[in-house]
Amino acid sequence: MNKADLIFAAGETSADMLYACGFRAPDPFIYFTCLQERGIIVSALEQDRAEKECKPNVAIFGRNEFSPDGRPDPLEIICSLAESRDIAEFRVPSDFPLGLADGLRQHGLIVQAEKGLFYPERQRKSAQELDHIIAALRVAEAGLRRGVAVIREAAVNADGRLVWNGEILTSEILQAEIAISMIRRGGFSDATIAACGNQAAQPHHTGSGPLSANKTIILDIFPRLHQTGYWGDLTRTVVKGQAPDIVKKAYAAVFEAREYAKTLIRPGAIPAEIHEAAKTVLENHGFRTGRQNDRNFGFFHGLGHGLGLQIHEKPCLDSVGAEPLQGGEVLTVEPGLYYPEWGGVRLEDVVTVTPDGCRCLTEMENVLEIEAMAK
Amino acid sequence: MNKADLIFAAGETSADMLYACGFRAPDPFIYFTCLQERGIIVSALEQDRAEKECKPNVAIFGRNEFSPDGRPDPLEIICSLAESRDIAEFRVPSDFPLGLADGLRQHGLIVQAEKGLFYPERQRKSAQELDHIIAALRVAEAGLRRGVAVIREAAVNADGRLVWNGEILTSEILQAEIAISMIRRGGFSDATIAACGNQAAQPHHTGSGPLSANKTIILDIFPRLHQTGYWGDLTRTVVKGQAPDIVKKAYAAVFEAREYAKTLIRPGAIPAEIHEAAKTVLENHGFRTGRQNDRNFGFFHGLGHGLGLQIHEKPCLDSVGAEPLQGGEVLTVEPGLYYPEWGGVRLEDVVTVTPDGCRCLTEMENVLEIEAMAK
Repeated sequence: MNKADLIFAAGETSADMLYACGFRAPDPFIYFTCLQERGIIVSALEQDRAEKECKPNVAIFGRNEFSPDGRPDPLEIICSLAESRDIAEFRVPSDFPLGLADGLRQHGLIVQAEKGLFYPERQRKSAQELDHIIAALRVAEAGLRRGVAVIREAAVNADGRLVWNGEILTSEILQAEIAISMIRRGGFSDATIAACGNQAAQPHHTGSGPLSANKTIILDIFPRLHQTGYWGDLTRTVVKGQAPDIVKKAYAAVFEAREYAKTLIRPGAIPAEIHEAAKTVLENHGFRTGRQNDRNFGFFHGLGHGLGLQIHEKPCLDSVGAEPLQGGEVLTVEPGLYYPEWGGVRLEDVVTVTPDGCRCLTEMENVLEIEAMAK
Repeated sequence: MNKADLIFAAGETSADMLYACGFRAPDPFIYFTCLQERGIIVSALEQDRAEKECKPNVAIFGRNEFSPDGRPDPLEIICSLAESRDIAEFRVPSDFPLGLADGLRQHGLIVQAEKGLFYPERQRKSAQELDHIIAALRVAEAGLRRGVAVIREAAVNADGRLVWNGEILTSEILQAEIAISMIRRGGFSDATIAACGNQAAQPHHTGSGPLSANKTIILDIFPRLHQTGYWGDLTRTVVKGQAPDIVKKAYAAVFEAREYAKTLIRPGAIPAEIHEAAKTVLENHGFRTGRQNDRNFGFFHGLGHGLGLQIHEKPCLDSVGAEPLQGGEVLTVEPGLYYPEWGGVRLEDVVTVTPDGCRCLTEMENVLEIEAMAK
């Protein structure tokens, strides 16, 4: 009796599946390894495309080879696979679908969910993966440059609203301009953040409605490259016109926290300690974190996260991250400060952990104020 | 002891989660219902945004209310939830993550995966959902019109390649133009199909490289509306210049198959029978289905699928669909013919099942040939 690895997921949305076989089908399909064999089992619809797009040494099977009556039921197909390969036990990712696992168990098969990462090696990026991430960062940078250019071109009307191209400049228009500049470079993003003022005080608010002068605008841009499936991630904060003093102070604090955190990132460093060190920098600048009137304020998210085939992946640079860095990780470093009274500041770079520290992969200046012209 | 519903998923990618609470966070969070209570448990990062975006009557909890030490471990948090609400058993969707379910079971909780849809009512669309899908279809139609306009504007060079805007027109350029026109309307799509000739013979090939005259170009466009999360889906097939006779015949057959299938769609109809009837129309036109030289040919995918918060959802109009239609479903109807020798033809409309038949929601002509100008 054999043990096998098994994934049932869509290559389009499952990083493990894409890492395993390289095939980005939009619907779930089966991947397995057993002894020396690696294979996927797909519908007729995907069979020819899989032949072209799969990694080498992955055999492509049509479903009908495992389900003579042509039924697409994955439970039947996997049971038939197990019988044909004499498989008694499957190792599966922790997000393997429960319904399918229970069905397999009822057929007497052992299904063991991996507790940690299914492919721990996914944390340490190969040279090729690094190139893919850097390519995605360049696209994010192009998107940010476009966003900043639009804000620069905008005038400010008597109400303090930004006006561009003859109309009030909204978060939505700015997001579309950023997305368009990235699409032309093969990067797709469905949720660019362009949040102004009070909205910027909520870290994941994507922003909506008119943009105003003299208030923080957080631009957080995370395209996925169509060709490779790797993500970029980049955040800058700008103010059209004059930044209030408190914003300037917060900007300086966040910038220092980010740069200081980078000096701590190296193999052996503990993520939680890096997170806490960044938080201490912010506190030393007088910025406290807490909760008041049902709103969080200060620095209330993790300092960063892994980046690769997922936009958020392991390891996290957060308050509970206890596993030492190994080297080879790609991490965002993105401290932020958020206060409902004046908005938010977040500055995000991406680094890779090198043998003796880290190397910043982001190539983008940090400029807070963008000159205003009255209109 | 109580029974509760439980989802652990990201609202951005889980249709069940989005349907349940309306909150599109990019990372997994917890949703539960127990007795009269409905709630979500989110990180501090998402707490304020959830307050604004969640459906009414969903209580928002911070993780720290269930995990005093602030650990983000969902297992700990759900165990603490179960204790606080005296919950002994959770009903979960079939795609609930196995690792988490096994953890909960080890803590003595019963976790039961729903065999069918977690929310069967999701198959029958409300008037509001129908409006959201129609809005997404209108965006898809705008994308298609842009694609057709670019092909119309293109010239044909001496090699039979399309030339547009001073350069060879590729699938990638056409995809970008289509995506851009949709982004301006609030629709995002990372995988528009614009596949020409032999590539069009693979139904899910997205297309790459130069587009040629006198060959089939399949345009399959499926944007998701940022504001609502609902999808549109639309396919047309065009030829720049002259369609070969075989393509004209295939087009007529596919058109007839689609229109005939629509006449069969009504409450009580069996999906597999509608699929087979469409296939028979294609066969009556002389188009066989099979596999030769390791390539599938003919009509080798399902006739259609449900459309809503997922691009592919239940019910499927395919060869194994045995459950009668109920009324209220939104379905794609998209027969196709694919032959490596000349390419592919697919024509896709979207219908909603009405009390006495179906209503077509797609508003888009069917035109095969686009006039060619030499250059």
